[in-house]
Amino acid sequence: MAKLIIDELIDALRCLPGVGPKSAQRMVMHLLERDRNGARQLADKLVTTMDKIRHCAQCRNFTDLEICQMCSSPARDGQSLCVVENPADLIAIEQTGQFRGKYFVLMGTLSPIDGIGPDEIGIDILAARCVDEVKEVILAIGSSVEGEATAHYIAEMIKPRGIEVSRIAQGIPMGGELEYIDAGTLSHALTGRKVI
Amino acid sequence: MAKLIIDELIDALRCLPGVGPKSAQRMVMHLLERDRNGARQLADKLVTTMDKIRHCAQCRNFTDLEICQMCSSPARDGQSLCVVENPADLIAIEQTGQFRGKYFVLMGTLSPIDGIGPDEIGIDILAARCVDEVKEVILAIGSSVEGEATAHYIAEMIKPRGIEVSRIAQGIPMGGELEYIDAGTLSHALTGRKVI
Repeated sequence: MAKLIIDELIDALRCLPGVGPKSAQRMVMHLLERDRNGARQLADKLVTTMDKIRHCAQCRNFTDLEICQMCSSPARDGQSLCVVENPADLIAIEQTGQFRGKYFVLMGTLSPIDGIGPDEIGIDILAARCVDEVKEVILAIGSSVEGEATAHYIAEMIKPRGIEVSRIAQGIPMGGELEYIDAGTLSHALTGRKVI
Repeated sequence: MAKLIIDELIDALRCLPGVGPKSAQRMVMHLLERDRNGARQLADKLVTTMDKIRHCAQCRNFTDLEICQMCSSPARDGQSLCVVENPADLIAIEQTGQFRGKYFVLMGTLSPIDGIGPDEIGIDILAARCVDEVKEVILAIGSSVEGEATAHYIAEMIKPRGIEVSRIAQGIPMGGELEYIDAGTLSHALTGRKVI
């Protein structure tokens, strides 16, 4: 059943976000016609990654080690801890080249309606880290309703320990034209105005 | 090297058409966070498909058999042969439900500049099929420069054999508004006008 074999691959490709039936079909045809080796290599890398990658015991980021390289790196400042929602956000902050401290990855935000409470986003592990060494916690969490709630929750937990807690600034993006910016963002930008 | 394992998967995903570095990263994060089983299944289906699927000896479509199901089906009319560029085009025509004959899949179009000559698109196999049984050949080939050249080439080869050769109609698409249609298409639609 050639049809079935190909259809099963088309179905399997739909586990990838953003891939619908048409693009899955296009991918299969492309691989069969032009890149069978690429497809085999992709299969191999998928298995390796799924087998080897787990969460770092300290920061919850993806790693193949017990403690990830970033957490164990002596080159990074352990006094400063940046809390992000997910690994992609961590990568985005790393790309700015501006932060040299360590990270904590929540792997989500508080969302009681979906059954995601403090335990699911590793608040206990974060709390255990916010002792001795850490002097500053930067909350680099998005400003959705869940993000706000999560940031608030973490801030309330950490502040009593005498650690400085800050949240990344909300305001107009670079190159942003005021007339196209939503009222919520503009309102935050006004509230957070700075004397120059 | 967790970083390396994940980066290798990101690179491997880029063998898929339409997947750039950002969406590949998003795919990896999604799979790691939410669908590790889906990823393993995808790897498995990729290998099976690449290993088992080859070209049908009669129509060149993808199949896991020597002769594909469609070619060997007694329910399909062997007198009518529809020539398409690739398997996706065949699927599109099948979805109309209007054609009950058999197919021939070129797997490309003539393109001397890229070294694609008659042999590469299986003209010899097509020629071998255009004997005895076949009474009509429908060229369902796109109207790019290469498509036109390919259709012309095949028509010239088949006509002397007394087989009826036709080309699918070119004209305005359904629901198409004239003001948004390109001049080439409109010109074909005018030339191909029909008395009603």
